[in-house]
Amino acid sequence: MTATASPPLTLTDEYDPTHLENVAARASRALSEFVDRQAAVLAAISPALAPATAALREAILGGGKRLRPTFCYWGWRAAGGPADAAEIVTAAAGLELLHAGALIHDDIMDRSDTRRGRPSIHRLFEGEHTTAGYRGSAATFGLGAGILLGDWSMAWCDEMVDRCGLPEHRLRPARRLLQQVHTELMAGQFLDLVEQARGGGSVERARTVIRYKTAKYSVERPMQLGAILAGAGPDVLAACSAFALPLGEAFQLRDDLLGVFGDPAATGKSAGDDLREGKATVLIAFARQAATAAQLATLDRLLGDPDIDDAGLAALRSVILATGAVTAVEDLIDSHVDTALRRLAEAPFPERARWTLGQLTVAATTRAA
Amino acid sequence: MTATASPPLTLTDEYDPTHLENVAARASRALSEFVDRQAAVLAAISPALAPATAALREAILGGGKRLRPTFCYWGWRAAGGPADAAEIVTAAAGLELLHAGALIHDDIMDRSDTRRGRPSIHRLFEGEHTTAGYRGSAATFGLGAGILLGDWSMAWCDEMVDRCGLPEHRLRPARRLLQQVHTELMAGQFLDLVEQARGGGSVERARTVIRYKTAKYSVERPMQLGAILAGAGPDVLAACSAFALPLGEAFQLRDDLLGVFGDPAATGKSAGDDLREGKATVLIAFARQAATAAQLATLDRLLGDPDIDDAGLAALRSVILATGAVTAVEDLIDSHVDTALRRLAEAPFPERARWTLGQLTVAATTRAA
Repeated sequence: MTATASPPLTLTDEYDPTHLENVAARASRALSEFVDRQAAVLAAISPALAPATAALREAILGGGKRLRPTFCYWGWRAAGGPADAAEIVTAAAGLELLHAGALIHDDIMDRSDTRRGRPSIHRLFEGEHTTAGYRGSAATFGLGAGILLGDWSMAWCDEMVDRCGLPEHRLRPARRLLQQVHTELMAGQFLDLVEQARGGGSVERARTVIRYKTAKYSVERPMQLGAILAGAGPDVLAACSAFALPLGEAFQLRDDLLGVFGDPAATGKSAGDDLREGKATVLIAFARQAATAAQLATLDRLLGDPDIDDAGLAALRSVILATGAVTAVEDLIDSHVDTALRRLAEAPFPERARWTLGQLTVAATTRAA
Repeated sequence: MTATASPPLTLTDEYDPTHLENVAARASRALSEFVDRQAAVLAAISPALAPATAALREAILGGGKRLRPTFCYWGWRAAGGPADAAEIVTAAAGLELLHAGALIHDDIMDRSDTRRGRPSIHRLFEGEHTTAGYRGSAATFGLGAGILLGDWSMAWCDEMVDRCGLPEHRLRPARRLLQQVHTELMAGQFLDLVEQARGGGSVERARTVIRYKTAKYSVERPMQLGAILAGAGPDVLAACSAFALPLGEAFQLRDDLLGVFGDPAATGKSAGDDLREGKATVLIAFARQAATAAQLATLDRLLGDPDIDDAGLAALRSVILATGAVTAVEDLIDSHVDTALRRLAEAPFPERARWTLGQLTVAATTRAA
């Protein structure tokens, strides 16, 4: 069963990328204005904060698909919110501040040197320490700056949502949801950390990680946030979950495949990073389950080896393919996409929202980057 | 001029420690209930979160003077809030969640192995990694867990304040203030990091760090939060600032003296940690300013040396004393305490609040731990 075999909505004919890109562009503009205001606050405290402000600006505005704002906006539309409201774009854009902060912390935790082809924040400040001829350890300085800048960006998320301009009776339930998002994101991250340390191997546990780290955090909760801000009732919120959770899982499964088999030029990630880190993905769990003793030995020997070379990466990819894990993940993606699209077809959303969410579903799960 | 030379309030006669301790005890009970609720949320996500929950509970409930909740509560009383309101205790206690998170991150940044005589969070999880026989680097696992648990605790601060039960028209301005607290705390921490890397030496810059890291974060903003929640007008809020800022600076200056000359048995900190880390305090800045060439050479050679021994620490202490820096800091403390008490005497606060804030001022600035 493939995602496009019996689509409940016409998915490709009327596809208009400009429309989707507008949400991302509008969110980026709102973020730029927010960062300008915060930069003025920080400049008034001390000129010595300028490097922090500049680095945060780059981390927040320097790229990203604005996936979470897009789903938030379409959650708003799904609940009948008007297309042109600036308030929802501001609130939706706020999610990117949480995300930027989480990525800054992620890069520290993964010891990643780069993000989107530029130095990761802790590496950037490590470099500034050296350039400025500062005292003490450059690595410790970079680590400290990275932790603080991540904290900063995360705290700003709630502030931006709170100042979006929507009335208080809408903001109050939205705030509760946002508090849940913080807790669930950290839960997903912590479970991921533990699962990776355990060496993975459980499809069930890897799927729980995906559920919290991606399906809820990147799709379900953003959509529900938008819907709640538009005054959605329980039926619309439930329909958001029913659609978003399988889509979110499929999205992450695609990401995991790209992390191992994707083209680095397209994904912007170093090839093999996921294998080098020993990421405990569903893909790897499937591979372990179906592996022969010899294949398992290869996985155990090479997965998570920080010094793995190209031959080692090739060996790992070939074992993963040979176990049938890629086919299993592709089947799971197809099944989830199918479920998401069926549920979308039944959802009590306006037609325009259903159509676009269908487009987003296909775009998010068939992408090459 | 000493703090007790001409006290504007009777500071010691009627001093009743039980009363102050009650705010701390009530805040701890509120925190315990909040953590219980969050633990249930996390347990429903996955049993694998249990170690995170246990560590957070210990970090939040395992000690601390509850200084910020106490000032928050007395800000509430200063604005005429009733003594027995449970809501303000809950809101005030929420500040401890931000603080616990900041301390968890601080310990990572400072590479501290212990906190209150127990392993710091990143060290605790480093140990769990080893005990469980997990894969990969134990230090990286500990680092990741520490970052996430700090993020968690910080995010919970806003949630606890938001759920304190006070009406929305009081919560809204309080939330704005809390957003400022997040930004200012990170600003203070970042400036501290940079100042330390620069090797310190500027009294002015060290005082800016203190202003944001302690005077605003630990005293002024907590008091104003309490006052705002009680419906304070601009005059009461301004009086909070006028009193709290000099008190907060004096508090930190006392802390810095204790960090170098305090009794480890009383402070719970390893003797000499501040010197070993090369903390860029006002004390050290004064010492550098007044040092002879020979004294400066000793400071440059030993300050921030991670391997400094007892003889080295003794040499540093003796140089710092010889420069007159201790006297300069004691004079500054006295002057700030005097200013705080004079402003308190003029503040439009109810008599009971003024009396207790006077007691707190003396307790916070003359303590031995």
